[in-house]
Amino acid sequence: MKAATHVFAGLAVALAAYGLDLNDTSVASNRTHGPERPLAHLTPSVGWMNDPNGLFYDNETSTYHTYYQYKPNDTAPGVPLYWGHASSEDLITWDHHGVALEPKDEQSGAFSGSIVVDYNNTSGFFDDSILPGQRIVALYTEHSNISESQFAAYSLNGGYSFEYYEQNPVLDINSTQFRDPKVFWHEETERWIMVLALSQQYKLQIYSSKNLTSWEFQSNFSHHGLLGYQYECPGLAKVPIVHESPSNVTLHGLNSTTNATAQTNATSVDHKWVMILSINPGALTGGSFNQYFIGDFDGKTFTAQDSATRALDHGKDFYAFQTYSDVPNNDVLGIAWASNWDYGVNVPAVDYRSSMSLVRNLTLRPYNPNPETTEFTLYSEPLVNYTHLHTNQSIHKTSLLLDSEETVSYSLGKDPQGLLEFSLEWKVNATAVTSRHDFADLSLYFRGAEDDDEYLRLGYELNAAAFFLDRGNTEVDFVSENPFFNNKVTQNIETYKIAEDGLPILKVRGIIDRNLIELFFNDGSSTSTNLFFFSEENYIGAVDISSGVDDVYTILDFKVKQMSLK
Amino acid sequence: MKAATHVFAGLAVALAAYGLDLNDTSVASNRTHGPERPLAHLTPSVGWMNDPNGLFYDNETSTYHTYYQYKPNDTAPGVPLYWGHASSEDLITWDHHGVALEPKDEQSGAFSGSIVVDYNNTSGFFDDSILPGQRIVALYTEHSNISESQFAAYSLNGGYSFEYYEQNPVLDINSTQFRDPKVFWHEETERWIMVLALSQQYKLQIYSSKNLTSWEFQSNFSHHGLLGYQYECPGLAKVPIVHESPSNVTLHGLNSTTNATAQTNATSVDHKWVMILSINPGALTGGSFNQYFIGDFDGKTFTAQDSATRALDHGKDFYAFQTYSDVPNNDVLGIAWASNWDYGVNVPAVDYRSSMSLVRNLTLRPYNPNPETTEFTLYSEPLVNYTHLHTNQSIHKTSLLLDSEETVSYSLGKDPQGLLEFSLEWKVNATAVTSRHDFADLSLYFRGAEDDDEYLRLGYELNAAAFFLDRGNTEVDFVSENPFFNNKVTQNIETYKIAEDGLPILKVRGIIDRNLIELFFNDGSSTSTNLFFFSEENYIGAVDISSGVDDVYTILDFKVKQMSLK
Repeated sequence: MKAATHVFAGLAVALAAYGLDLNDTSVASNRTHGPERPLAHLTPSVGWMNDPNGLFYDNETSTYHTYYQYKPNDTAPGVPLYWGHASSEDLITWDHHGVALEPKDEQSGAFSGSIVVDYNNTSGFFDDSILPGQRIVALYTEHSNISESQFAAYSLNGGYSFEYYEQNPVLDINSTQFRDPKVFWHEETERWIMVLALSQQYKLQIYSSKNLTSWEFQSNFSHHGLLGYQYECPGLAKVPIVHESPSNVTLHGLNSTTNATAQTNATSVDHKWVMILSINPGALTGGSFNQYFIGDFDGKTFTAQDSATRALDHGKDFYAFQTYSDVPNNDVLGIAWASNWDYGVNVPAVDYRSSMSLVRNLTLRPYNPNPETTEFTLYSEPLVNYTHLHTNQSIHKTSLLLDSEETVSYSLGKDPQGLLEFSLEWKVNATAVTSRHDFADLSLYFRGAEDDDEYLRLGYELNAAAFFLDRGNTEVDFVSENPFFNNKVTQNIETYKIAEDGLPILKVRGIIDRNLIELFFNDGSSTSTNLFFFSEENYIGAVDISSGVDDVYTILDFKVKQMSLK
Repeated sequence: MKAATHVFAGLAVALAAYGLDLNDTSVASNRTHGPERPLAHLTPSVGWMNDPNGLFYDNETSTYHTYYQYKPNDTAPGVPLYWGHASSEDLITWDHHGVALEPKDEQSGAFSGSIVVDYNNTSGFFDDSILPGQRIVALYTEHSNISESQFAAYSLNGGYSFEYYEQNPVLDINSTQFRDPKVFWHEETERWIMVLALSQQYKLQIYSSKNLTSWEFQSNFSHHGLLGYQYECPGLAKVPIVHESPSNVTLHGLNSTTNATAQTNATSVDHKWVMILSINPGALTGGSFNQYFIGDFDGKTFTAQDSATRALDHGKDFYAFQTYSDVPNNDVLGIAWASNWDYGVNVPAVDYRSSMSLVRNLTLRPYNPNPETTEFTLYSEPLVNYTHLHTNQSIHKTSLLLDSEETVSYSLGKDPQGLLEFSLEWKVNATAVTSRHDFADLSLYFRGAEDDDEYLRLGYELNAAAFFLDRGNTEVDFVSENPFFNNKVTQNIETYKIAEDGLPILKVRGIIDRNLIELFFNDGSSTSTNLFFFSEENYIGAVDISSGVDDVYTILDFKVKQMSLK
């Protein structure tokens, strides 16, 4: 099938005025950075970035491709909006390939969408010259003020440039609020499935297709979760169940479970379907939020197992999560925009805005949110490949009983680069708390090397049964002055496991990269992703550990690695 | 029917050691306050207070009665825990009546519950000497480490003291996590209905009874909304629908509504049932959270109209909301604990902890959260009776177009007492924003009279489409040091109405009382209740208005009253 590329003379002129060449195929990499930019996270080489788009794995070249909403000539969003493109083999270091998809004209945007690999050429876009694993088809929203409709484009060179389907749109219902198609192959019904948002009606719509260009409506998934102003960026994924109980699931929990669905599945089912939904604005925490629902999908309808609302991440800066197509072993890998529409434009940075999260691997595992319940929850594990990471300094401490008189301090070595990984396991002896008036915290202070008055405080408090992160202790004006950038982020976390002496153990793993911290609790039963800002080049150089109470907290295991890019 | 009062010799001895006489019937009032204490909100005269309990209106004496979880001899929670008692005719000034209900022993708590007026003496607790409108029966949870079961008690003197039903418990399912009964008379089935939480199984259970002492299980309402660690303090209320569209409902919205239920009800139904649910910990914003679900109730089962999660209040400090029984005209009035378990013990105060919210009137009204949806939402209106409030100074400004060069400042008069009411209507001209890089805010700074470096900043920002409150600008150490007390609270708010020139208008009403601010947006379609702390006696004495952009914001109407108690 023949398809024509749009020609936009006006657009080319406008971009020339910014000195940008959209057809520039030179490769930039994130291995050269300014002082402000995360090292191990994807950031655009220049300009504005938001939602991840078109994520896929090329099995022919063993390469991950990440596209994203992109305005190369500005550090704020607006039209014309493009798809930018980066690729990676390790998901830590990224090569930049500039613009991949363009909108129809200067007043339009190539809004969010997804990519599938059309192995069997159901679309007819390909011939035998294109390897089955590189038959790349993008489905995305062509946006203007008067219309949002779904377009198809395909690549004949492995995703580096695209041809536009000449009979676009492939789906148009005469709406201005109809967007963000996520497409996948449903093996059981041998159909392509598209889920997208009829945004302001709080509906996710499901369509199916045999050929990626002709789409048939199947069902609505409506009024679930927090509604906010509108629904955006949905996703539907078949998530494997890990049957082995994680450490925190007790026999008591399993016996007393009240969720029959969870109990049944723990022994008989190898997957559940998970519907992912973004809302913006309207997060309870302000601005942008990602939630998910666990259920079943029969090729036509997604049926949630219950009416609960579950957070995909509890931090302020995690939005528009999307999964990669065609990942080996059917692993469910995905990435989110690590920012918030409430302040994403206004954060301190020079020539670019925003980064992605690390790529995460999703599984469903039973856990005990409290002693009487065992349920499935979504576990997220960050993929940290160390091929291009060098450990400059590492610390490993065990068996440290804290008292309120002493602060334990560790240097994280000379010339820190702002990239750290840490993990902490601690045991809590609640009976040692002498008064309910005590503030019974375990606190870690990650302090700037140049100016230790700038620090991240994070830790746990017994009476609140919650983990906290305080990103407010900095001289950066934006942090105090922007009224949406709140300083403290907190969440209840469950017991990880019970020690031999009967006391509860909890666990957190964190990755800190220049201005972003990602926290994974108890092997990833919940996560929290948050931006923070210290003064320029004041990278974290030390960590202090203290407690407001005596003999309550024992550090069982504390590891920190101070790293740089190789 | 005869019932015996518990006798607790050990408890009486313990309380004597604190110098407290639980039978002290002397009346204290909130009309005499220390400098830190809210003036127009219910606070305990001394000791710890949390959930409101047993709320009812005495039609015989035209008096509102509010009980609450109470530990009179401590400013932190713990056992033994009591019901405290206060009464009011204006819901602004309160008379204190000390302890109303006691637990069984020192290791127990008289945990949360409700009061009904048993007009027809279905319980048999009363004889003709007790006026029908004063046949007061309390249903509450008797808590210990090994059991939570439901107890009944009744009052023969209008709610000032109680007799304990001798055959307690009235409901016991051998659980340690089964609590907070809210009881009401269901006219249609002529039964008493109890809703309470099987907390750690994420179930609200519904029971019915003919006599308040024998209860029959009817149904579970399970796994709705945010689950958190556990469910607590449920409520089920028949909420009147106000059929007149509020100002923000446009014809476009009504025509394009996609929620058939809302559309049908707007013309044919005079009420819907609302299930209220508290979770703690586990709020997305940290700690304590109140959510609600709209639906139908047939005397046995509550059926939610959808699977959406809706916030009863968007602030940090609004928990365990409960409605009053027997309010005239079947109005749905209720009150919440205006604090958060994450830090309620630790806030600055001397001899007491926490206050209640103002009493709110709930209705269901259609609104437009976005241009394509019209739905019912819960509107909350604060009941502010001015009988005992004196206005010391008032300001009223109209038609003020803001530019970025000028700050408009108003004094709020001499000798402020920390009690303010304000309302603000503003119009937004988005076309006047010249760059997406601008931070397009309208900001009000309510500044301390003694030290104007302490201030509350609140306002609206166009690109975020959100209202913000920053409570972090203060010298009070608690605010910066407590890692759960976050500084900034924000929420998306919808357009209130459209001006004749086509521009959107938004509205907020606020009550500030010493250390508490309650915000009501757009006539109450959403609310935000938050504590804040300035240095002692640094009461708000001025307000500045400014904007980061030119000609975007017009103040249409701005009123402030600086008040004191008569």
